[in-house]
Amino acid sequence: MRFDHRHLLGIEPLRPDEIETLLDLADRYVTLGRQRDKHAHALAGLTQINMFFETSTRTQASFELAGKRMGADVMSMAMQASSIKKGETLIDTAMTLNAMHPDLLVVRHPNSGAVDLLSQKVNCAVINAGDGRHEHPTQALLDALTIRRRKGRLHRLTVAICGDIAHSRVARSNILLLHKMENRVRLVAPPTLLPAGIEEFGVEVTHDMEEGLKDADVVMMLRLQKERMDGGFIPSEREYYHRYGLDAEKLRHAKEDAIVMHPGPMNRGVEIDGTLADDINRSVIQEQVEMGVAVRMAAMDLLARNLRARPTELSA
Amino acid sequence: MRFDHRHLLGIEPLRPDEIETLLDLADRYVTLGRQRDKHAHALAGLTQINMFFETSTRTQASFELAGKRMGADVMSMAMQASSIKKGETLIDTAMTLNAMHPDLLVVRHPNSGAVDLLSQKVNCAVINAGDGRHEHPTQALLDALTIRRRKGRLHRLTVAICGDIAHSRVARSNILLLHKMENRVRLVAPPTLLPAGIEEFGVEVTHDMEEGLKDADVVMMLRLQKERMDGGFIPSEREYYHRYGLDAEKLRHAKEDAIVMHPGPMNRGVEIDGTLADDINRSVIQEQVEMGVAVRMAAMDLLARNLRARPTELSA
Amino acid sequence: MRFDHRHLLGIEPLRPDEIETLLDLADRYVTLGRQRDKHAHALAGLTQINMFFETSTRTQASFELAGKRMGADVMSMAMQASSIKKGETLIDTAMTLNAMHPDLLVVRHPNSGAVDLLSQKVNCAVINAGDGRHEHPTQALLDALTIRRRKGRLHRLTVAICGDIAHSRVARSNILLLHKMENRVRLVAPPTLLPAGIEEFGVEVTHDMEEGLKDADVVMMLRLQKERMDGGFIPSEREYYHRYGLDAEKLRHAKEDAIVMHPGPMNRGVEIDGTLADDINRSVIQEQVEMGVAVRMAAMDLLARNLRARPTELSA
Repeated sequence: MRFDHRHLLGIEPLRPDEIETLLDLADRYVTLGRQRDKHAHALAGLTQINMFFETSTRTQASFELAGKRMGADVMSMAMQASSIKKGETLIDTAMTLNAMHPDLLVVRHPNSGAVDLLSQKVNCAVINAGDGRHEHPTQALLDALTIRRRKGRLHRLTVAICGDIAHSRVARSNILLLHKMENRVRLVAPPTLLPAGIEEFGVEVTHDMEEGLKDADVVMMLRLQKERMDGGFIPSEREYYHRYGLDAEKLRHAKEDAIVMHPGPMNRGVEIDGTLADDINRSVIQEQVEMGVAVRMAAMDLLARNLRARPTELSA
Repeated sequence: MRFDHRHLLGIEPLRPDEIETLLDLADRYVTLGRQRDKHAHALAGLTQINMFFETSTRTQASFELAGKRMGADVMSMAMQASSIKKGETLIDTAMTLNAMHPDLLVVRHPNSGAVDLLSQKVNCAVINAGDGRHEHPTQALLDALTIRRRKGRLHRLTVAICGDIAHSRVARSNILLLHKMENRVRLVAPPTLLPAGIEEFGVEVTHDMEEGLKDADVVMMLRLQKERMDGGFIPSEREYYHRYGLDAEKLRHAKEDAIVMHPGPMNRGVEIDGTLADDINRSVIQEQVEMGVAVRMAAMDLLARNLRARPTELSA
Repeated sequence: MRFDHRHLLGIEPLRPDEIETLLDLADRYVTLGRQRDKHAHALAGLTQINMFFETSTRTQASFELAGKRMGADVMSMAMQASSIKKGETLIDTAMTLNAMHPDLLVVRHPNSGAVDLLSQKVNCAVINAGDGRHEHPTQALLDALTIRRRKGRLHRLTVAICGDIAHSRVARSNILLLHKMENRVRLVAPPTLLPAGIEEFGVEVTHDMEEGLKDADVVMMLRLQKERMDGGFIPSEREYYHRYGLDAEKLRHAKEDAIVMHPGPMNRGVEIDGTLADDINRSVIQEQVEMGVAVRMAAMDLLARNLRARPTELSA
């Protein structure tokens, strides 16, 4: 089992065999999570600190449960209410927590690149739980695990990613992962919600849902990130739903057994029809959440193994 | 030991023997809580999630300590700062947490019936920690345990419940429990703070403290829920205290050994005289808090036994 | 090993040998904290509640990690969002938590003396995590541990404490401790930031950094507590930095091997030059944070030993 990284900052640095290694381990944590006694001991004696500079129910809860189930001492910091208010910088805050000898630091930050920067200053393993519009690697990994379990493979699939691509780190990490694993990725979005130069990532781009969904194995809807749309064109929700919202009618263009994904939280009736979201024959949205805990357990387990293999740094 | 429920949503569905079973077990947890080492292992390997859509120091702290002392992995969510803000519905939030495989979900919500609705959607055991004006079963059970320990029995007592009955789920759950256990319940309140049709619950109603407290074994004061009084008549605190606030003078009408209860947080000098609240010969207010942790340990223990007796549901 | 206290409310009641006892134990926890497996078991089965009426990233995180690493069930209460809002008093809130049988209560409060008052009402051990302008004993102890490890001793040193002395409980606790251990303490501050009657503490006072830093072994900078300056003279940050901010130039007056301390969070370019703060040859600011966890583990360990030696009080 090879996973040659000190941090998990993005999908970009991962090799395909490392992705498979992580997903194989995650599969075992899925099985554990479905048992009544969910305890593992991979992080016993270790300290995990969650620093969320943006709030998030599902991601923070997922990391917190993942750590607790593996025996870590877990501390979650609501960073809005923190020293930042007293004028301290991000790096000073991180250095302060680093001096308390955490082993794992899980960080979400509104600025792209902030987590990378932070990882260069600390002694522990850092996991990027989402930085600006850059990366959200555990989301892409949980999506990959969901697809692999449902489709039996993670390559040579046609995956349509639809909606607000421009503001989405989820899209970016998924594109990178799916491309590495040799899948065909189609982006479907209005021109205003597509980032410039996205074609360089080896994806097909269309503004039309019918064209984008044609023969897709996987239809991945994105959340309309209204809170990130500063000044730009905001479509009316009604018009958006009409053209880009997923319903049974539009889904007919995809393969008969295509699965429907959404990273949550959903805006029902905007990005996706509520009935379709709840249809357990097509929608794997709840399963994505379950896979999220397992993938985070696997990621922290692998990073902790690498930590234990290195000598402890003694400070000063 | 019989407790035939998957959830604890209210007092209404409980049989008298189930109430006694739960209180017997709670008595043992009281003993444990008074020792220095307070650890039990009834919830080891299980995951407890507290979802509080209304803030509460004492109830949330009580559930959190109860779970931690029994070895659960406990996660408390401040739901105001959550996905709800991003437009997600209550049910979607619950389904998301459910997909993380909690075993126990403790929920407080401002809407009556919200917790019942939620319990129908999830795979785990749900405990109602207060829903609107409907029920707050663990409060009624901790009050019952306090009474049973102080009075030596939980039947054929005269219990006066005084104050803001109209807005009180505490009153409602207590009335149901005391009625089931064959006690005489008197409600004492101004007409504006009594809900319509309350007589159907088999209680006596009066607007006069002297009449209501006459020969009472237990005097249970309620908090004046100013935050729930939308538009209706709000008495001046001074006038309210004069007529309905409990002091030594009014208490003289109750039995000589009557105990004084309050679910907290207290408004001293509004609902109750501060000196009386602190009189350890009459007031059992601190004891109620202690019983709260024990009753919640017992409730979660019983629900966990029922969980373990059922096969684990495998999702998808 | 002697530490004859039920609470840790301040430096004032501690004997020099008790301070040394605590620091000796803390040294052992520093070693533990630098290992990968950081678990001790001194607080297993005990309950620690953190009540912070003022927010604090570093102090609350430090106590929380200290407790978790020693096996306590730790619960942190954000007291702003608590029952206080519902009109409950500090003492009622404390009595409520006390009734849940915590063993250790860690309290920060904006009013001087509030923590002492509270300690008289509860059955458990209380640690003052900062009360108004009064004391912050664990900060002084972590500073002492840092000095002792760096200088090889904790007596006959010249320590310059510089900046906002008037609003600083950190300064007050440090002055008390350093005086007890027979060090020479110099306070350096503008007249408006010096409390009246400070000379009674056996310190030298100057308004000039050159004079204050002359031959100092330790230069301890304080945070400019703008949030505590109600109505008084507030210097411009630029002027303040010019006269009282520490930079390499001013530090030249101290001994060649003088160390630089700051309790954090720092205002770079106001109290201290950023480059100097990051200079690991002079600045021990990160080390102070590390010592903080160790000192809090030692303090809670000693208080827990005293707790275990006393019979458990049975309430009611």
